[in-house]
This record gives sequence, C-alpha cells and structure tokens, in this order.
Amino acid sequence: MKILLIGAAGKLGAAVHKTLAGRGHEVLTVGRTSGDLRCDIADPAATAALYERVGPVDAVASAAGDVPYKPVSEMTPQDYESAFHGKVLSQIELVRQGLSRIAERGSFTLITGVLARDPIPTGSAASMANGAVESFVRAAAIEIAPLRINAVSPTVFTESLADYGDFFPGVPPVDLAQVAQAYVRSVEGGQTGQIYGLS
Amino acid sequence: MKILLIGAAGKLGAAVHKTLAGRGHEVLTVGRTSGDLRCDIADPAATAALYERVGPVDAVASAAGDVPYKPVSEMTPQDYESAFHGKVLSQIELVRQGLSRIAERGSFTLITGVLARDPIPTGSAASMANGAVESFVRAAAIEIAPLRINAVSPTVFTESLADYGDFFPGVPPVDLAQVAQAYVRSVEGGQTGQIYGLS
Repeated sequence: MKILLIGAAGKLGAAVHKTLAGRGHEVLTVGRTSGDLRCDIADPAATAALYERVGPVDAVASAAGDVPYKPVSEMTPQDYESAFHGKVLSQIELVRQGLSRIAERGSFTLITGVLARDPIPTGSAASMANGAVESFVRAAAIEIAPLRINAVSPTVFTESLADYGDFFPGVPPVDLAQVAQAYVRSVEGGQTGQIYGLS
Repeated sequence: MKILLIGAAGKLGAAVHKTLAGRGHEVLTVGRTSGDLRCDIADPAATAALYERVGPVDAVASAAGDVPYKPVSEMTPQDYESAFHGKVLSQIELVRQGLSRIAERGSFTLITGVLARDPIPTGSAASMANGAVESFVRAAAIEIAPLRINAVSPTVFTESLADYGDFFPGVPPVDLAQVAQAYVRSVEGGQTGQIYGLS
C-alpha cells in the first residue's frame, strides 16, 4: 500500500515507518522539518496543500501530536487551544480532508494515548486531547464506511522511560515495536472505530 | 450551598435548578440571555467577569454546551472549533478560573453526553467535545483535590424524545429528573473524577 505517515521523524513515527516499510509498503514520510513532504498539520490549509501534492494514497497514519504539560492551575486558555490544534483538529482535518482522497477501502490511523483514561499530574491538556480524538474516531467510523478509522492509544514507551518514566510510576511501559504493530493492525486489518489501547 | 448554575434556562438546566433549589440550595442561575447573571462561557473573558461579579460559591454546575451537528464530510474546521469553544474550553475555563474562587471542598459538575461513547451519525463534533470533557474531568480531579470535579453524561432525555428520538433508535432515554439527581450526587457527595453515565 501507499501510506502517508505524518510525524515520521518522531520516536514513534520512526518505529512505525520501519515496521510498515519492512512489510513492503511504500511509506511517504511527512514532518514539520524533515521527511519526503513538509507539513505542519496544525494548520488545516497546510493539510490541504499536503493532500494536493501527494495524490491518492491507500492509508493515512498519524504519529503526530503536540500538547503542553502544566498543572491545571498554570494552564491558560491558549494552552488548551494549542492542545486542540496540535493534536485534535490537526488529526480530524487529516481525516475530513482525506475522505475524498484515499482509496476506496482506505484507512486512517490516529494517535492518542493512555492519558485519555489514566491521567497524570500536569497532563490535563493531553487527556483532553486524547479523549477528544478517541471519541471522534468512534463517531467518524460509523459515517465514513467503507473507509476505516482507528486510534492507537499507547502508554509510555519503554524507549522513553529515561525521559518520562517518572511521570508514570508503576505503569507498565510498551515497546515501540508493539505500538507499531497496532498501526499494522489498523492499516492492514478490517476493523474500524477501534481504540487500540497498549498498556 | 451557594451554587452557580450555568445554562440554567435550558431543559436540563431548569430541571437541575428545580431539583437543587428543592433541596434547599441557593442557586444562582446563569444564561446567555436570561438568569440571575448573563454570561456566554464560550468567552473566557466573560467567565472571568462572571466570577468577579458572583463572589465565592460552594459549587459550580454546568448544563451548557453548544455543538454543531452535520455529517463529517460537511463539517468545516470552524465547526470543530465551535464545538471546542462551545462545550470544551468553556467548561474547562469554568474550572480553571474557578479554582481560586470556590469553597475549600467545593465541586465542579460538568455536562458531557452519551455520544462520547456511543456515537450517532452527524454527531462527530459532539462526540469529540464530550470525550474531551470526560478525559479532562478525570485528569483535573487528581490535581485539584480537595476540590472535586465530576461529569454528568446522559443519553437522550425522555422529555426530548419528540425532537431527538429519531437520532437515538432503540436507545433507552433518561428522565430529566434522574439526570438532575446526578448533579445532586456530584454536588452533595464526596466523589471526584467520576463520569456519571445515564443511559
């Protein structure tokens, strides 16, 4: 399949890239500052330009999402706006604008995360964004068939424990290779409206 | 208790008002065009002005949330923005700005809805908004203690079946009086971080 992979330069994106390419897929990498195509999907107009350039694809996979981390009491309305644009609307626009551009039984795979269900201190914007994306995925799935849409919702990556492990005391981490398999499951499988929780 | 009730003029708000007042609480009603105080909470500055005027309260209860309904393919980025401002950021700001203003063990009760978990066609913005609020509630709860926060997440109201029943085929409705009891449970009880699902 020809797969558009957004956020390909990140830790997760690189693992997904490697896994999908290893299975024989043609992966078009997208990043803000690197990749086959440059795009900041927080800007809906940039997403439109991306789809214009790339032409038809069989699947769209996102590993991109930026949200601020602060105590609720230190958040500003702009912080929540930023989380909404950086992880929610950005991914919704990948889907909405992609509806008319991907293959007949093409799929969208979005990224959320464990904070939708299991919060951590300073993570309220991330929780908000992840919960928004997961409920959107369930809702979009029943409208866009036979196109498909799923979300991958991992806990902390084993490979990120050194940086973020302190925020997830006692929480079992997940290997990036396992998370990448959830993308495979979404892209190559037949399911839709699923939240692949990895914890 | 002195309770600030936002969205008091709506069907749900009126039921919550009646129930809370019937239990001896002093309810300050807030609406965009009616009520003891006028405020459009979609504007964070208006929420700040509301809290300035109202002084200390024991609880904040919201029954206010506006989202557009359309097929995903007809939504615009502005529609999702509108849902975010009308139901998500509006309620987050009630909490965030209220932290320094409500009583020591005061509570916030927000409104979400069944579409967070059980979608309907044309409801993707509502699902997105409800999922966002529910995950925010779980996240905020672990930070703001001993202040409390819960969400009430009802299915279609029995009293709204004539208008909206066709959108919820086979879904058991819930009486407004029952939904109002969930607000009582949140305001007078001791729980936090709960999503009171009513279906």
